[in-house]
Amino acid sequence: MTFRFSLKAQQGAARAGVFETPHGPIQTPIFAPVGTQATVKAVEPRELSELGASLVLANTYHLHLRPGDELIAELGGLHRFMGWDGPMLTDSGGFQVFSLGDLRSIDADGVTFRSHLDGSVHRFTPEVSIRIQHNLGADVIMAFDECPIPDNRESVLAALDRTHRWLGRCADEHARSGDANRQALFGIVQGGIYEDLRAESVRQVCGLDLPGYAVGGLAVGETKADMYATLEITTSLMPADKPRYLMGVGSPEDLVHGVARGVDIFDSVLPTRVARNGAALTRLGRINMRNQKYASDPEPIEPGCTCYACTHFSRAYIRHLVKASEILGHQLLSIHNLHLLLTLVREMRAAIMNGTFADYATAFLANYEPVGAQKGLSLPAR
Amino acid sequence: MTFRFSLKAQQGAARAGVFETPHGPIQTPIFAPVGTQATVKAVEPRELSELGASLVLANTYHLHLRPGDELIAELGGLHRFMGWDGPMLTDSGGFQVFSLGDLRSIDADGVTFRSHLDGSVHRFTPEVSIRIQHNLGADVIMAFDECPIPDNRESVLAALDRTHRWLGRCADEHARSGDANRQALFGIVQGGIYEDLRAESVRQVCGLDLPGYAVGGLAVGETKADMYATLEITTSLMPADKPRYLMGVGSPEDLVHGVARGVDIFDSVLPTRVARNGAALTRLGRINMRNQKYASDPEPIEPGCTCYACTHFSRAYIRHLVKASEILGHQLLSIHNLHLLLTLVREMRAAIMNGTFADYATAFLANYEPVGAQKGLSLPAR
Repeated sequence: MTFRFSLKAQQGAARAGVFETPHGPIQTPIFAPVGTQATVKAVEPRELSELGASLVLANTYHLHLRPGDELIAELGGLHRFMGWDGPMLTDSGGFQVFSLGDLRSIDADGVTFRSHLDGSVHRFTPEVSIRIQHNLGADVIMAFDECPIPDNRESVLAALDRTHRWLGRCADEHARSGDANRQALFGIVQGGIYEDLRAESVRQVCGLDLPGYAVGGLAVGETKADMYATLEITTSLMPADKPRYLMGVGSPEDLVHGVARGVDIFDSVLPTRVARNGAALTRLGRINMRNQKYASDPEPIEPGCTCYACTHFSRAYIRHLVKASEILGHQLLSIHNLHLLLTLVREMRAAIMNGTFADYATAFLANYEPVGAQKGLSLPAR
Repeated sequence: MTFRFSLKAQQGAARAGVFETPHGPIQTPIFAPVGTQATVKAVEPRELSELGASLVLANTYHLHLRPGDELIAELGGLHRFMGWDGPMLTDSGGFQVFSLGDLRSIDADGVTFRSHLDGSVHRFTPEVSIRIQHNLGADVIMAFDECPIPDNRESVLAALDRTHRWLGRCADEHARSGDANRQALFGIVQGGIYEDLRAESVRQVCGLDLPGYAVGGLAVGETKADMYATLEITTSLMPADKPRYLMGVGSPEDLVHGVARGVDIFDSVLPTRVARNGAALTRLGRINMRNQKYASDPEPIEPGCTCYACTHFSRAYIRHLVKASEILGHQLLSIHNLHLLLTLVREMRAAIMNGTFADYATAFLANYEPVGAQKGLSLPAR
């Protein structure tokens, strides 16, 4: 079997595993950098390798519109197109088209929407999304689902029903026109912040024998407390022998809380997005490199960090680059931020393997100051 | 002597040499990438090393205004600040302040100007420029000169007189407060397109015993024919035992014509500026990567090129990045464009060393299609 998942160690709900893909194994837990338009913004593929990235994401919605999934297929697929030879994952495009607001209309069969680029009309159905993802050729492809507002029970319920029916259609289309040895279809559990709906969604989604399952619809507006509680109950119901992917989550504290609740895979644009805004992620929290206090600071972004940015440049220089709108600032902050998240998941994996994860997680969160006032949320009982 | 220049071979006017600096030797002829704000735009210092760059430029005007030359001095100088351990050169700031138009006023003693960043008032004199360049700490520093409109004899004459008087003041200030073993002051020959004024400027500028001399005031609006003719007469009058730097010139054809006329050092923002606009320099000419014809082209930017961009990515991918305004497009095109110019000067050096430069230059120019209609300008007689 091409897509084998093996658990190597567990501590509480936290898991260390290996997920085999046609482009190599993914050591879990893992954080996946996002290359929306077939490039992780301002980072070269050789730099992703150097950072120890394994899984890289790309977005179906964006690539379908530009340059086109058929063009990418003609050129040998996404891996060759963007020069990334490691494992890849594409989303279904659902999240993006539902986010288009007035530019889209949903019906029982799919979603009709206007391109944010040129206003042209397009239609995604479960079958269309799967066929586009076949053209892109990522190792992991995602079911076409609907991500509702998490704390509106009625909208969650309506979306859930659609999500489950659409999952069946995605699986059928993948069986019909796909290659299960080349691409693994993951189902997505929805249900907002409602325990009963999450349980029902797990029953329906994980009732289908798929190579992996995602938790969708979190980190989309609910409180962190709701997010962590929902995640905890959801993963506790999911099968232990399949990888679990928490979609769109990537702050340092969320990675720790997620792993503590049994998540294996994360992705987020956060590290590269905050880099573009001149911010660095550190083990103490997020820092704004525009701050005047760094103007003559000879220290690296994060003392002790072994990334290229921290081993070669001062905060004063990074601040200068950011203030002067120099691209190198974006490049170096992206490298540093990705390095932190990839180091964090490696450290968590090692801690799970040697039985020290609970201590590791507690210590990390004690030092880390999250954005906003969310500090002090508990880890699950050991 | 720290700054020793040795000629290794000559063919016609073309020279291969070595210029020793405190940060290592520069094999000439050389092209110097420009890091205006202490960064070569979108290129990491480790990538400059990989490309074989040796001399890197930075701009006194920009760094004086932001982050400030005193701050850079406090942080250990420009080399440490920007993470470039090889030879560096700073301009005098003269060209930039004279380019400010209505924002500056010139008098016999210097130039008063307003910052393009915040409108604050500043004043450069020869002494100020030299002291700023001492703070920055580049290996080669430039005299504060005036670059006039090249084909207005009256303005050229007035500027020439100032340039020569200011050179004396720069040399005095460098002798007074500088360290000739740490920083070499180059004088700048001006004179527009007028043979007699160039000859007079060479007499005055090269009459001072300096470690090197630049040719300024070319590639600023005159025709290519005038530029090459002026360059040829100017270098023929300059001392053979000192490096000759043609300022602000960097198109492939100009490098070949320049070396054929005895130039040792070039600099230009051209390779990174055209990269930002989505253009690639190739041995056949400049190409616009936005062109529809590259949409599904699996070939690299330039077949046979050994740069990171060409060995890993297709024209189709580069076009996608440029069309999607992705920073990686700027990064990869900058790498490729710098690679071409640095390879070109290395090839010319090798050809001079083995006596095949005339053939090399003729063959290169026969294949190369310059922008505009300037093809076919003659090389100097062998």
